Amino acid sequence: MDIPALLTSAGMNIGISVGMFSLYSILRKQPLNVKVYFGQRIAQGRTRNENLCFERFVPSASWLLKAWEATEEDIFACGGIDAVVFLRIVIFSIRIFAIATILCTFLVLPLNYFGQGLQGIEDSTALDLLTIGNVQEGSRWLWAHCLTLYVVSACACCLLYFEYENIARMRMEQVQRFPTRPSNFTVVVRGVPWSSVETYSESVGKFFSNYYASSYVAHQIVYRFGAVQQLLEDAERMYKVMTTVPVMANVPADQCCETKVDPRCGLCGAKSSSFKKVSGGSELAGRNVDDELREKECEAALVFFRSRFDALVVSQTIQSADPMLWVTELAPEPLDVFWQNLCVPYNLLWIRKIIVFIASIVFSVLFLLPTTFVQGLTKIQYLQNAFPFLRRVSDRSYINLITGYLPSLVLTVFLTIVPPLMMLFSTLEGRVSRSTRKRSACVKVLIFMFWNVYFSNILSGSWIERMGKLTVTSPKDLATLLAELIPRQASFFTTYVMTSGWSGLSCELLQPVPLVGNWLFKCVLMRDDDFVRPVTFSFHTEVTRVLLFGLLGFTFCILAPLILPFLLIYFCFAFLVYRNQIMNVYFVKYQTDGSYWTLAHNATIFSLILTQVVAGILFGMKKSSSASTATIPLIICTALFNVFCKNRFLPLFRNRAAIDAIEMDRTDENSGKLQEIIENLPKAYNQFELCGDEMQIPKVEDAAQPDKPKKSGSSESLEELEIVQPEDLSVDQPSPSSSPSPSPSPSQSEAEDKIVSIN
Amino acid sequence: MDIPALLTSAGMNIGISVGMFSLYSILRKQPLNVKVYFGQRIAQGRTRNENLCFERFVPSASWLLKAWEATEEDIFACGGIDAVVFLRIVIFSIRIFAIATILCTFLVLPLNYFGQGLQGIEDSTALDLLTIGNVQEGSRWLWAHCLTLYVVSACACCLLYFEYENIARMRMEQVQRFPTRPSNFTVVVRGVPWSSVETYSESVGKFFSNYYASSYVAHQIVYRFGAVQQLLEDAERMYKVMTTVPVMANVPADQCCETKVDPRCGLCGAKSSSFKKVSGGSELAGRNVDDELREKECEAALVFFRSRFDALVVSQTIQSADPMLWVTELAPEPLDVFWQNLCVPYNLLWIRKIIVFIASIVFSVLFLLPTTFVQGLTKIQYLQNAFPFLRRVSDRSYINLITGYLPSLVLTVFLTIVPPLMMLFSTLEGRVSRSTRKRSACVKVLIFMFWNVYFSNILSGSWIERMGKLTVTSPKDLATLLAELIPRQASFFTTYVMTSGWSGLSCELLQPVPLVGNWLFKCVLMRDDDFVRPVTFSFHTEVTRVLLFGLLGFTFCILAPLILPFLLIYFCFAFLVYRNQIMNVYFVKYQTDGSYWTLAHNATIFSLILTQVVAGILFGMKKSSSASTATIPLIICTALFNVFCKNRFLPLFRNRAAIDAIEMDRTDENSGKLQEIIENLPKAYNQFELCGDEMQIPKVEDAAQPDKPKKSGSSESLEELEIVQPEDLSVDQPSPSSSPSPSPSPSQSEAEDKIVSIN
Repeated sequence: MDIPALLTSAGMNIGISVGMFSLYSILRKQPLNVKVYFGQRIAQGRTRNENLCFERFVPSASWLLKAWEATEEDIFACGGIDAVVFLRIVIFSIRIFAIATILCTFLVLPLNYFGQGLQGIEDSTALDLLTIGNVQEGSRWLWAHCLTLYVVSACACCLLYFEYENIARMRMEQVQRFPTRPSNFTVVVRGVPWSSVETYSESVGKFFSNYYASSYVAHQIVYRFGAVQQLLEDAERMYKVMTTVPVMANVPADQCCETKVDPRCGLCGAKSSSFKKVSGGSELAGRNVDDELREKECEAALVFFRSRFDALVVSQTIQSADPMLWVTELAPEPLDVFWQNLCVPYNLLWIRKIIVFIASIVFSVLFLLPTTFVQGLTKIQYLQNAFPFLRRVSDRSYINLITGYLPSLVLTVFLTIVPPLMMLFSTLEGRVSRSTRKRSACVKVLIFMFWNVYFSNILSGSWIERMGKLTVTSPKDLATLLAELIPRQASFFTTYVMTSGWSGLSCELLQPVPLVGNWLFKCVLMRDDDFVRPVTFSFHTEVTRVLLFGLLGFTFCILAPLILPFLLIYFCFAFLVYRNQIMNVYFVKYQTDGSYWTLAHNATIFSLILTQVVAGILFGMKKSSSASTATIPLIICTALFNVFCKNRFLPLFRNRAAIDAIEMDRTDENSGKLQEIIENLPKAYNQFELCGDEMQIPKVEDAAQPDKPKKSGSSESLEELEIVQPEDLSVDQPSPSSSPSPSPSPSQSEAEDKIVSIN
Repeated sequence: MDIPALLTSAGMNIGISVGMFSLYSILRKQPLNVKVYFGQRIAQGRTRNENLCFERFVPSASWLLKAWEATEEDIFACGGIDAVVFLRIVIFSIRIFAIATILCTFLVLPLNYFGQGLQGIEDSTALDLLTIGNVQEGSRWLWAHCLTLYVVSACACCLLYFEYENIARMRMEQVQRFPTRPSNFTVVVRGVPWSSVETYSESVGKFFSNYYASSYVAHQIVYRFGAVQQLLEDAERMYKVMTTVPVMANVPADQCCETKVDPRCGLCGAKSSSFKKVSGGSELAGRNVDDELREKECEAALVFFRSRFDALVVSQTIQSADPMLWVTELAPEPLDVFWQNLCVPYNLLWIRKIIVFIASIVFSVLFLLPTTFVQGLTKIQYLQNAFPFLRRVSDRSYINLITGYLPSLVLTVFLTIVPPLMMLFSTLEGRVSRSTRKRSACVKVLIFMFWNVYFSNILSGSWIERMGKLTVTSPKDLATLLAELIPRQASFFTTYVMTSGWSGLSCELLQPVPLVGNWLFKCVLMRDDDFVRPVTFSFHTEVTRVLLFGLLGFTFCILAPLILPFLLIYFCFAFLVYRNQIMNVYFVKYQTDGSYWTLAHNATIFSLILTQVVAGILFGMKKSSSASTATIPLIICTALFNVFCKNRFLPLFRNRAAIDAIEMDRTDENSGKLQEIIENLPKAYNQFELCGDEMQIPKVEDAAQPDKPKKSGSSESLEELEIVQPEDLSVDQPSPSSSPSPSPSPSQSEAEDKIVSIN
């Protein structure tokens, strides 16, 4: 690939992006698309003033300005700590790649270009001239590359350290910020042993009141997922028969159910009383079917304790001599619980994990096929010997399009199936909370991307080149091979940054699927209800994408620095776009308390060390043994830095500090709040209320009413929670209830003011 | 190497072993060597009847019989749980290799020999004819190899499971067996934060009485190692000046100290009163130098709690928001504490660990030199092209000696430096207990052996062969290379089993260094005191050796089964020899409660999977793709089995179960014993008494008095402990004090009876 092909790709992508950005700035002002572009604001019950004027049809950059001006507190109020951490990852990338771009463009790039190492190339526009491959063997200028590597590594480590410190502090503050979180007092117990004489619930009660008599408050058994669904449905149907038949005696019961009872939540402006009835019905049914319930118990329970410290202690100790029984861990937040997986028997979990592991490997191997196909498109000239019909193609004028734009587009399309699949894998693994499930999916996607996008592209690309040349080189180890191959793939990855990065951002901004779906629903099908429902931010795809680009940036920065400006543009726009999306589109249901940062840290350290190793080997291959030796201390220092960070910060992301818990318990005890919190604990985790929503019972509620945000079914329980813990949930989970939160924190209301004044 | 060379080696080794076994059976009956061969019995204060008769000079096998007849309870009484676990590892090896030997000798070996795959070899005595290399490509008989692999793997997994279950049970019983262990109530705190206004001791007291008011009993600060030594010396000197000057007023004080005060412990029969004086002196000095002590505090302390559960809770929670401060873990037993490392600042530990890690790698790399040299000796015929002077050597008659016996002897000699070095590394790592230090050294030696003895011998051997042939093969990956190379190294490893295994056992039995040293001291230098001091069993060398032979056995069992009979003989004799040594020679100072088993389990699983992978690749290379495919499910099943064991048993080796602790606390509380235990806790961990011995203050005590066992200095403290916890220490740490233990357990006294009746 040469410079014209690259420019073709850049031109196309810039065109597409600018067009889509302008389109977005118009579309977002149309009342039709409010639900698509302001899901979060609607969820928070904030309205927009919609005046029909000429401005509505003129592209503007006002949203960029708003995104730029928002403070970190605004982001925190809208997106929670995870959104803040995600944006810190982007800011870290901007900083480090700004430094790298300056250094590499003015120091490394000219040295590469005037290196005269590739005498054989007559084409002066070949991109290879800009890579380290063009530096002559034994050149003294390789020291400049080595120096750049040192500066970039040092800056990256410094920035990483400060970010890690900052995020660890934020995570700790999180506990103090939400002192009444029920999860602090609750422990999930799994693997309750089966007993022939007593139910699971009795076993749990007996065990904890025996061994933890002083701290145990109550427990709540988990019911089988299908059982809960069945019960709720039965109760609902029974209730409806009872309430509707007297009014409309001549209408068949089935019909009336569907026509009269409109089970909308209060959120969308419909009668919220209907929901009170529903949950009243479930309570009624709950009393009636008590015996039936007992048969439907799972071997898992939520146990409530008198203080945070007690819950911490129970969660961190092994209870029984058989480590597969009485397994304890701190409970997730009520809305974060993934009830379905709580019912999975604990002793099957390891089998599920292994199956998922094997399935992931199989999938990765199968994915080599599309990767090789993509590389085949890039290296089409090498395939001409094997497939003569390609000769005709390569002479055509659109060859630049095929080698420059098509391959990374194809790869991007293939990659869209990866995140949902990995999410499925993480669900199968049996995670008991939605947040850990998403984080686990993120890890899987990250490893997949690093391996299948980065390494397998590099390796399959080289395989195709060799097949074309039909020369077998002498045996070399993998590292040397990589060092030789990475610079050659620079041009492909530069186009990948543009296609997957730039155009990906435009897609993220435009939200084409909800947009078109909404339009079809409203304008073509003329349906009254909404196609769009507010969703949570998909960290597992976006964190991964940013980190993959970080890997590309680091590994290519001194080998083929031309990629850096493209990357920097991506990160800057990503910063603005994601801020806009977090503040407007996505809502927060659960948080990982910033644990995505550990992932970002590890990925960055991996990228740095890979860069250093590859650079060291390349220096060696260029016969500059002193520069090659000089990278060894750098690698050791980076590894040391990583170990230090692991020791210093990682435990804070794994466990909670005992003395913090004790201090908080004392404060609450003295102020008398503790008793109140404890009394409300059992109500917080009501499986029937929390599950009822999740399942979105289709027979009773109108199935074509998907505008309801996921937790609308639990609006009652939410209100209940909010009364108990006013300052807690209102910030922790910006609730999508129709009324504004009872006591919004100052920062949040400030943010609201700002956001409402958009347009 | 061919069969005559192998027979030469076998003959030499059998001769040496039989000779040394006979020699041992004579030497052990000589009164001169009692301290060499019956260290443990002497340490336990059991005497032997020494009647000079003709039988003393006749070799006998009575010791073999005694070793065979001893029960597991005897071993437990003499060597503790670790010795039992070690012998279980040997028994496991005997069982699995007995099965493998039968299967392979009667099924695989004939198939290999009549395989006719190596047509080019005219020498009918070549050992290669007995390897899988001689099976024809695509032969149907490879299914027999595959079947054998399946049977051996299945048997190994079954045996491993039962052993793991058995040892996990023993480990749990260990807690119940020694209910008064002070370590159950004690937590080591490291990283006490520095404060300008208060001492470390005050900080610790304040912290725990604030946050753990209900469970905290007392604490004891750790003093700097050098400081303790200094103080003890000062006190000693002061005391001596005070006590001796009045008696011998005209003799200079320095002289009298050395001539008159004989500070022997009660153990060796000298006045034990002198020791009382010494510790009395240290107490006196302790009061005087209270202020001085404060300056010598370390940032570590031992904290005592009211119950086992409380100590468990504190040890398992993170205390502070800074994870490098207030780091807690359960304390080791008093005699197990490695005081020197307790003083290492906690935040330096990770640096030390990294330095040790790097040093280990450097050492491993440097060790390639002797390995290559050893392989050069084995493949001397291949080096003739490169070094023509070797031609003369290879024509001589002693070539069989050089290729058959010398290489593994040289390797064994080089390997003797490894265990002490790894022990040093583990000390530098900063382990706070002697038992974990030894276990860590064991892990290091194991990895070193697997890598440097096994893999690097295989790889360097092949490198030499290739250099001789001067043919460069086409690029192959490491796995294929291994599959091709492992069978070729079978003959070398067969001789290695004989040299390192058989002769190693004879050495272990004869104890040449103490024997000769003792003889020199007694007969040549005519000194009255002893050269020999009782030592603890060096698990880190012996466990490693057994596991390395296990690796050899598994990987060669279907590739080159000739090694199996030699191995089986080794394991059978190892069983008898180690039983004998554990019951007679070594004494127990500290225990890991059976945690060597996890190591053995992991090593065995690694060996099994390596075997299966290599076999799978070899089947593939032999064009038997169905047999090759059949190994894949086997590999997966073995990995699954490993994961299952990790889930089922491993947590028991890492943590203690809370409910067991609670139950024991309750029992003791009801019987009133708890109060007594708690009152005696602070006395158990007296750094001055426990350290005073460790340092073996040379200026005061006669430096040339090394017969004193390591803990003799603490005889007073030991007696104190024994009075408090009669049933505990007497079995837990068979004490080397001169008086028999106050209340030996039934099993122990039984064992004593048996052992006393030897000869």
